[in-house]
Amino acid sequence: VSTRSAASHEFEDLNGNADRLIDRVRQGNRRDLARALSYVEYGGAMAQAIGRAAWANASGAHLVGITGAPGAGKSTLTSALIKEERLAGDVVTVLAIDPSSPFSGGAILGDRIRMMDHALDDGVFIRSMAARGHLGGLSLAAPQALRVMDASSPSRIILETVGVGQTEIEIAGAADTVVVVVNPGWGDDVQANKAGLLEIADIFVINKADREGVSRCKRDLEQMLDLNAELLDGWRPPIICTVAVNGEGVSELDAVIRRHEDHLRDSGRLVKRRSARVKSELEKIIALTLTQRALLFAGGRDFQLALDRVLAHEIDLYSAAELLVSQATPD
Amino acid sequence: VSTRSAASHEFEDLNGNADRLIDRVRQGNRRDLARALSYVEYGGAMAQAIGRAAWANASGAHLVGITGAPGAGKSTLTSALIKEERLAGDVVTVLAIDPSSPFSGGAILGDRIRMMDHALDDGVFIRSMAARGHLGGLSLAAPQALRVMDASSPSRIILETVGVGQTEIEIAGAADTVVVVVNPGWGDDVQANKAGLLEIADIFVINKADREGVSRCKRDLEQMLDLNAELLDGWRPPIICTVAVNGEGVSELDAVIRRHEDHLRDSGRLVKRRSARVKSELEKIIALTLTQRALLFAGGRDFQLALDRVLAHEIDLYSAAELLVSQATPD
Repeated sequence: VSTRSAASHEFEDLNGNADRLIDRVRQGNRRDLARALSYVEYGGAMAQAIGRAAWANASGAHLVGITGAPGAGKSTLTSALIKEERLAGDVVTVLAIDPSSPFSGGAILGDRIRMMDHALDDGVFIRSMAARGHLGGLSLAAPQALRVMDASSPSRIILETVGVGQTEIEIAGAADTVVVVVNPGWGDDVQANKAGLLEIADIFVINKADREGVSRCKRDLEQMLDLNAELLDGWRPPIICTVAVNGEGVSELDAVIRRHEDHLRDSGRLVKRRSARVKSELEKIIALTLTQRALLFAGGRDFQLALDRVLAHEIDLYSAAELLVSQATPD
Repeated sequence: VSTRSAASHEFEDLNGNADRLIDRVRQGNRRDLARALSYVEYGGAMAQAIGRAAWANASGAHLVGITGAPGAGKSTLTSALIKEERLAGDVVTVLAIDPSSPFSGGAILGDRIRMMDHALDDGVFIRSMAARGHLGGLSLAAPQALRVMDASSPSRIILETVGVGQTEIEIAGAADTVVVVVNPGWGDDVQANKAGLLEIADIFVINKADREGVSRCKRDLEQMLDLNAELLDGWRPPIICTVAVNGEGVSELDAVIRRHEDHLRDSGRLVKRRSARVKSELEKIIALTLTQRALLFAGGRDFQLALDRVLAHEIDLYSAAELLVSQATPD
């Protein structure tokens, strides 16, 4: 047996294994779903084979992003929302992105434990994910994980991220329906970038609405929407008040999410939004593929020579990069 | 005059202008420093010309990164540290990175205003910077800005970032001396990634040390250092207690920063650390340059065809990327 055919055998095995794994995921095997997600998190060839198989078996589940400041009550809200959906008989899958920061405000593990209310419920699958290790970071690992979850045909996927950091915001902002969670008192602060929220929010939730300052917070949000009316594309983000800990307002939120889903489908915006998401991810993957090539030749002699000249302050980094890229003639 | 020579004229002008601007920056002109930083933030050809000129005129100022959770007191500490350094007659330059999140905990503008204590002091230059707009994001914009600041020959540059988000942590972690600020009570939380801090910290500061829990926090940090002693590379991060609002402990912190600077120089680690920083940045710039090429052909017909096949679920995104990259033959 030649090396070449052995390698191609291995490749077929990989794809075959991925196909079989995703087939079991489709049939609702949760242990295999968990396993497939671990592969994706780990990265490498098997992750890509699984991503391929999952994409070929996409169910097109609705993706709801929930984001907000640490402590806004996102996890409690997610948990309450799951309860609501389970009453409707829906199967729900949750991907919770752990911030990669070693500081992290808010009791994240505590929140996860709270979600364990649903641990024994077969109609609920919760997975938390950290960015570490995956090449290309969260912005590539999260969509791969979401595709694997999607292959299990849930009626809805909830993606929960803490709304801090460039990457974290982008990930949540790419969902079909983006729920932004704030608390009473939000907006009093000088630096809150109110208009920045508008760029991503489809629905606003004022959680902990049993506290003081709800009407002012609501007025602030309405005003922001009025001021930016020309940016709204046929949908004015509703503002829902909730007290997630006791479930208040959560069924209304659930209804509004469904209304937004209908709006997206009926207006043809769902297809557009998803195409845009795939396009932007494809661009990122191309960039990553090219970067890997770049790193390959970063191990080479030309790179070292250029780096030495930079370190000697003879040329600057951007000129060195130009030089190296124009020298490089991949294949 | 042919188009070609007009373009090359323009190019020479650009470089000439950048050289003259950086020359004035070197001579201590603060208005020109501010202007050069605006160009860098704006991006484009002038930004690169300025970066080139600044790198050719590098002074090699010591770069101190200060990071920590929102509300830990980083800005107050920075302000107190500036005061300390000014007593020593040093010229200080501060780059404060604003988190790009629209949520942002902590009173950022308030902090900036607090730093305005130094607004009338010619030996202090403070600039805050947000990520928006710059291609490649903060991780490329910040080092360019730092190089421009460096050309003004300050005795020290302080880089302040909120320790949340993947990018933000990386930026601070790349400084010569990294100061990680925590508060009493830190570490009680289950999810605090204590060992994660060790990867970046050269010095720990327990700020607000007039509050309860200091000795426990200190013990926790010492224990973490003991447990990871094999990771320490000839330097065990000292733990300094401060009350930044009244300046307590700040002169000790200043002394420890200088001690770490000496340690880096004497052990040859400063050169190594800076080389590693430049190397990693060069890799990122190469990746960005290649990405820009990728985006160029992302506008093309092949990209659209591949994207259509992906959207029809005929192929997955990673296979499409492979296909496109292997088709592309950048000259």
